[in-house]
Amino acid sequence: MKYSSGLVLLSGGVDSATVAAVAARECAQTAALTFSYGQRHATEIESARRLVNALGISEHAVIEIPSRIFAGTALTGAGMLDVPKNRNAGGEDDIPATYVPARNILFLSYALAFAESRAIRDIYIGVNALDYSGYPDCRPEFIARFQEMANTGTRAAVQGRPFAIHAPLMAMKKSEIIRLGTSLGVDYALTHSCYDPDPDGRACGACDSCLIRRQGFMDAGVPDPTRYRS
Amino acid sequence: MKYSSGLVLLSGGVDSATVAAVAARECAQTAALTFSYGQRHATEIESARRLVNALGISEHAVIEIPSRIFAGTALTGAGMLDVPKNRNAGGEDDIPATYVPARNILFLSYALAFAESRAIRDIYIGVNALDYSGYPDCRPEFIARFQEMANTGTRAAVQGRPFAIHAPLMAMKKSEIIRLGTSLGVDYALTHSCYDPDPDGRACGACDSCLIRRQGFMDAGVPDPTRYRS
Repeated sequence: MKYSSGLVLLSGGVDSATVAAVAARECAQTAALTFSYGQRHATEIESARRLVNALGISEHAVIEIPSRIFAGTALTGAGMLDVPKNRNAGGEDDIPATYVPARNILFLSYALAFAESRAIRDIYIGVNALDYSGYPDCRPEFIARFQEMANTGTRAAVQGRPFAIHAPLMAMKKSEIIRLGTSLGVDYALTHSCYDPDPDGRACGACDSCLIRRQGFMDAGVPDPTRYRS
Repeated sequence: MKYSSGLVLLSGGVDSATVAAVAARECAQTAALTFSYGQRHATEIESARRLVNALGISEHAVIEIPSRIFAGTALTGAGMLDVPKNRNAGGEDDIPATYVPARNILFLSYALAFAESRAIRDIYIGVNALDYSGYPDCRPEFIARFQEMANTGTRAAVQGRPFAIHAPLMAMKKSEIIRLGTSLGVDYALTHSCYDPDPDGRACGACDSCLIRRQGFMDAGVPDPTRYRS
């Protein structure tokens, strides 16, 4: 074990399931945080709960974030923008419609508060700069700046035991992530990706997230256990 | 007016009331965020509501933060540490027992999400490095790092219209803050400071926050409208 205790942000998708398995391997004790913010895919939270059990995570907190905070984005339910039905992750200037303002900043800040209260210094997040190049909060320079800020604005600033924000999937292709998780025993049947599942929990197969997931399993040569409706 | 729209973090205390008056002067439209996190002084939220009305603030959101996030600190109600009855804001290595892990980081992250969703770029916070020198999240280097992080991890990173985190009270003494607010017409009878008020809302007069407030009004030569029980 590299660390005595760690904290992982767990959404219930492929990337966070994989990074949770990395955290569980590297830390003697691992806690997990999941956020509920009126997303259409509330089944994500069920996926997170099942992953917590499967990975032997010791503490799991589900945090409710009022969805009016993220007003005007595509991921927060009725009355919001339509979820785009084709991939829209572009270059430096092309931020996808599914970007949620300051979402990872808020999630990591909750993680800091939770971790500092429990003397945890190692925080894991499954961000990935390749598949989500359009999201400013999924890039290495953001993670570096967040870590600097964390080590300036907490007890770590005076106690000399700094926080580390681990983003081990940052530079990996989806297929590499799936191969890593498979090697760590992740059961991807427990995970969930679709932005727009039907009432039975079947994935649409057409949104950004489904397209990236499908291609990832194909490229990895691993069977995709997802139930798609098309 | 310097800015078309601004957002202020409003706790209902002397400092946030003053910075809200600054924001209302500098911005054509001002919104406010108040946080509820199981603090003993829930009357703070009532103070914030009254200040919103008095200052003509256009939108006010009260955000609930689950208090288990801040487990193990003195400000979050039953079962927590006792509130210290003497001033304990020390030097570089002396973080007061009333420090709440990553609190301002979390508050500012909510502010970012709220502001980015509404095209607001100017965020005001009433932190002060003199009276609260022991708090790592009340120092200019923290505010600078947070602003850098915000401008790396949001649309501001690609759109070239950066966030500014305004902390105009940073280097002011409490007496100077009170004089500034008085000059801007702040009614300090609407504000609230005590960490440990009685059921009638009267301040204890003895906690860190009361001692700083009392001394501030005395030094400013402004009558203190607070109801103290001793």
